[in-house]
Amino acid sequence: MSHALHDVATGTLFGVALNYQGLVDEHLAQFHEAPYKQPPVKPVLFIKTPNTRNGHDQAVVHPGGDLRLQPGPALGVVIGKSASRVSEADALEHVAGYTIVNEFSLPEDSYYRPAVKAKCRDGFCAIGPELVPRDQVANPNDLTLKLWVNGELRQQGSTAHFVRDVARLISEISEFMTLHAGDVLITGTPEGRVDVVPGDKVEIDISGLGRLVNHIVAE
Amino acid sequence: MSHALHDVATGTLFGVALNYQGLVDEHLAQFHEAPYKQPPVKPVLFIKTPNTRNGHDQAVVHPGGDLRLQPGPALGVVIGKSASRVSEADALEHVAGYTIVNEFSLPEDSYYRPAVKAKCRDGFCAIGPELVPRDQVANPNDLTLKLWVNGELRQQGSTAHFVRDVARLISEISEFMTLHAGDVLITGTPEGRVDVVPGDKVEIDISGLGRLVNHIVAE
Repeated sequence: MSHALHDVATGTLFGVALNYQGLVDEHLAQFHEAPYKQPPVKPVLFIKTPNTRNGHDQAVVHPGGDLRLQPGPALGVVIGKSASRVSEADALEHVAGYTIVNEFSLPEDSYYRPAVKAKCRDGFCAIGPELVPRDQVANPNDLTLKLWVNGELRQQGSTAHFVRDVARLISEISEFMTLHAGDVLITGTPEGRVDVVPGDKVEIDISGLGRLVNHIVAE
Repeated sequence: MSHALHDVATGTLFGVALNYQGLVDEHLAQFHEAPYKQPPVKPVLFIKTPNTRNGHDQAVVHPGGDLRLQPGPALGVVIGKSASRVSEADALEHVAGYTIVNEFSLPEDSYYRPAVKAKCRDGFCAIGPELVPRDQVANPNDLTLKLWVNGELRQQGSTAHFVRDVARLISEISEFMTLHAGDVLITGTPEGRVDVVPGDKVEIDISGLGRLVNHIVAE
């Protein structure tokens, strides 16, 4: 992680589930079953705890056993000043900049509320390589994400397919909790998650934000 | 919050849902429905984010509108040294001490995975008044919790009815994530949550740990 990013993105890591339309479409049938009986009407949030923090070019430990590990390419939005009940129009003024997040997870049967046990293992949130200031990103809602495993393109998406764009996320989340400088919004992973195994080199690139590399290792 | 507690309990706040047998019994029928079809087999965790931190004798803001607010009396376990894959036998050596937590929440229909939106509003986690060192608490799994609203006893429980006792929680959680010094385990709230409204004085006492007082105020 570069010094600038490491010094700035020190706060809470907020994950947003189900923020790509393709993912929601895949699970529409499930959402109409009990206990919820409808798709989520508000952002579905989860937390990546501080023990999950990891950086560029670092190892990520595969959980082993018969567990599966999946990378999660995501645009990271680093908050630059406190946001409480901000409008969509004002929301982006509260952004310091953007970075790449690899939000590692065990696969989950349910998408309603991601489980701490699947999301919060040590090292499961790689962030980097750098913080790109807000004014250097023309439109955060039109960036291409690519995931490469051992040099092969395995997953691809565009933030143009967000369910909620960056400004709307900040506005809706700040309705009920204050976002602080240094907090990071992990804006979601597109459909098509793949499994990785020890020995794999996992890379994510997002237009204009560089490339985040991690190495999967055995326990 | 006393200086000692404030200086020590600086880490991640981990909530444990459904850790009282009475609460599990109330919801047994629901657990056998879709999508889970069985009661949880491992601790159900949630996070209280840093914006929820609050202290003794402080105000808690009622969310207003037609939302309901419920206090959550809970034993707080403050971690004293890092715990990774510790046995139940060794678990309590990783505890610095105990305190009282009032884990405020909006009521939830589902107990599977508590929602960030219900649990993580600003000021929704009062901790205090002090840190009682581990060696001053004979048995953390045999403490009486009482919740008083405006001087009236409204909820009562005992940590003797934990589903998982303190040592087992630390052991099972540290299987998949490292607990660090300063982290706090919020060990759960017994059945019988009540609603509170602006103007209410809410007090929790736990045997040997003192009394945590908060004041509910309007937005």
